[in-house]
Amino acid sequence: MSKDLVKDLAIASGSKIVLIVFDGLGGLPRGVGERTELETAYRPNLDALAARSVCGLMDPISPGITPGSGPAHLALFGYDPLRYEIGRGILSALGVDFDLKPSDVAARANFAQIDARGNVIDRRAGRISTEKNRQLCELLSQIKVPGAEIFIRTEKEHRAAIVFRGQGLSGRLSDTDPQKLGVPPLTVQPLSEEARSTAEIVNRFVEQARQILAREERANMILLRGFDQYEALPSYAERYQLKAAAIANYPMYRGVARLLGMTVLPTGDTIQSEFETLAKYFQDYDFFFLHIKKTDSMGEDGNFEGKVKVIEEADRSIPILMDLQPDVVVVTGDHSTPAVLKAHSWHPNPVLLYSKYCRPDQVRAFSESDCLQGGLGRFPAINLMPLMMANALRLNKYGA
Amino acid sequence: MSKDLVKDLAIASGSKIVLIVFDGLGGLPRGVGERTELETAYRPNLDALAARSVCGLMDPISPGITPGSGPAHLALFGYDPLRYEIGRGILSALGVDFDLKPSDVAARANFAQIDARGNVIDRRAGRISTEKNRQLCELLSQIKVPGAEIFIRTEKEHRAAIVFRGQGLSGRLSDTDPQKLGVPPLTVQPLSEEARSTAEIVNRFVEQARQILAREERANMILLRGFDQYEALPSYAERYQLKAAAIANYPMYRGVARLLGMTVLPTGDTIQSEFETLAKYFQDYDFFFLHIKKTDSMGEDGNFEGKVKVIEEADRSIPILMDLQPDVVVVTGDHSTPAVLKAHSWHPNPVLLYSKYCRPDQVRAFSESDCLQGGLGRFPAINLMPLMMANALRLNKYGA
Repeated sequence: MSKDLVKDLAIASGSKIVLIVFDGLGGLPRGVGERTELETAYRPNLDALAARSVCGLMDPISPGITPGSGPAHLALFGYDPLRYEIGRGILSALGVDFDLKPSDVAARANFAQIDARGNVIDRRAGRISTEKNRQLCELLSQIKVPGAEIFIRTEKEHRAAIVFRGQGLSGRLSDTDPQKLGVPPLTVQPLSEEARSTAEIVNRFVEQARQILAREERANMILLRGFDQYEALPSYAERYQLKAAAIANYPMYRGVARLLGMTVLPTGDTIQSEFETLAKYFQDYDFFFLHIKKTDSMGEDGNFEGKVKVIEEADRSIPILMDLQPDVVVVTGDHSTPAVLKAHSWHPNPVLLYSKYCRPDQVRAFSESDCLQGGLGRFPAINLMPLMMANALRLNKYGA
Repeated sequence: MSKDLVKDLAIASGSKIVLIVFDGLGGLPRGVGERTELETAYRPNLDALAARSVCGLMDPISPGITPGSGPAHLALFGYDPLRYEIGRGILSALGVDFDLKPSDVAARANFAQIDARGNVIDRRAGRISTEKNRQLCELLSQIKVPGAEIFIRTEKEHRAAIVFRGQGLSGRLSDTDPQKLGVPPLTVQPLSEEARSTAEIVNRFVEQARQILAREERANMILLRGFDQYEALPSYAERYQLKAAAIANYPMYRGVARLLGMTVLPTGDTIQSEFETLAKYFQDYDFFFLHIKKTDSMGEDGNFEGKVKVIEEADRSIPILMDLQPDVVVVTGDHSTPAVLKAHSWHPNPVLLYSKYCRPDQVRAFSESDCLQGGLGRFPAINLMPLMMANALRLNKYGA
């Protein structure tokens, strides 16, 4: 859409929308004639919901394109990811609850191990503990470089977020992470003229960090990637007239939600606790984004059975959701993560949309193959928010 | 896509992709309750392949639009034909292996017959022999017009390609072919101010050609159409990191392939010889475009049974392809050419995409009606290349 049609038509209302995202939901069969992870799972509650819903298959971006989690979620939330590009660094900083200011430059940091010749031998420093990470971040917080204030925050295991704040900074910077082993970390290069001084600042930081970390056995280096400068996006309240809340137990997803002005609700580590959080706050918001991470983690690990179990675990919590009598429910994925690929993939995700006004189809089970026959057909994720808004009777008529 | 996402994400790999294009594949039933050409054909190998593939229906451009072969192939190759417009003349010149230089202006030429009053009575001069065409082109090669070097090359039967080379030429010219009988050929008109001198050059050429051809019984006139100026397109190597080869026994299709930097392989006249060429060169390239012309020719002739036989002939060569164990295979058409219409049409084409990671669907036969139930759904041809690249694991993830 050339205009922001949904923003122009959005109206406030008392209706409640719940978007359940299974990260990396879509899968692949392990062999000819076999079933996907979702098709294998015992999922009576999701199937019963699908039977009352309109279903379809949804491309994260467009056919053939495999997205990262950032662009995939932006699309689910109705923000064109080709227009709103967000660097990994911004997502990481938002995910550790760092209070980013406009024009801050952020990057994703990995503690890594280099050998005596300075070549990277482990890009994750043996996945050090989160506790160790915290100690190292504290050490690195001593570093002072003229021209910028520097913040470094533990994310999880070997991962951290780093933020540079100051006048005239730019995020147009190359990575120091060489993305392979046996070679030294790279020097940050400015990707445009105005990024020259920021590149110098970052390189000075890395040099000091290297000296401080030199005494460490494993995490003796830091690698930076995904530099980006923070710009606020139009919020859910502005665009959709929705008071939105996010329930997610992984930092990056909380970060994307916060970027769009959603309130991040405190929740527990289990899927059931996420649904209980939904129930607890149900009266306080119009829109809920509930994120289930472990389908993706299991897929990335190539753990087919593990992914099946996560789906079954989530299925058991669906009654908590339906007892709340929400007006609109969507269950889908942000992208596929088939265990056989051990990676994100381009395959479309099954989607079910339940509402009183959804015009149900003949689909009686929630799976890739069943949803293919659904009334929503095949569509790009960017169309999902208008469909949810419409089913919540939250969009005015377009034109007279 | 506003950006060239596929170009940004493409990576090299050892995987091999084969695209089989049946020209004008899609058809129509001859009567109520009857079957299309493809549905009528005995095609056990294509059906077996469909059963292991993900299938769908593909619109050449967009619903309702009937394309010529040029735009239809550009779309199949992932080049938006509304952005990359290529005149018929450029395709003709490329198809006769003419070495076009940037800014050359080319047109398609037909030898035709006019009567004593100068009216066109046969736009194809009774489809003169290719040999006769060669003699006439040699005669016309004597023509000199100040301001441009002129090349005329035999294509086939009554068809030739003509190229004007010189300073300050423009391809913004109207046709001389009136596209109907009983009227005289048209004078070339400049379609913009800067094309004025080129129009004069072309009209002088046509006048001299008319005098030279006046002694001919049938081919006593030449008609020009599809003027265009040559601009190189981004190549397959650049955009897709693919070393690509084309196998086609009709000149124009070799021309489009060459325009995109594909190597045109020498091959024979039969469909089987095209598949044998594929086998012979299989180790040398990453991507193969294999073009089967006669489905379209039979459709254009209204020869339903003939089109069925061409499909059956091609089906028998499918084992040659599958014995090579390609990573990705697509079988489809560039546009439909139903025998009942005797012309190209807008109907979507069946498409099958085979790969180890294709997420097969319930489709068990390769036909228009079966593919309608396929997992690819209905999509525009421009999306095919990203799907093939993804299935060949030749696209990086988009974003973090």
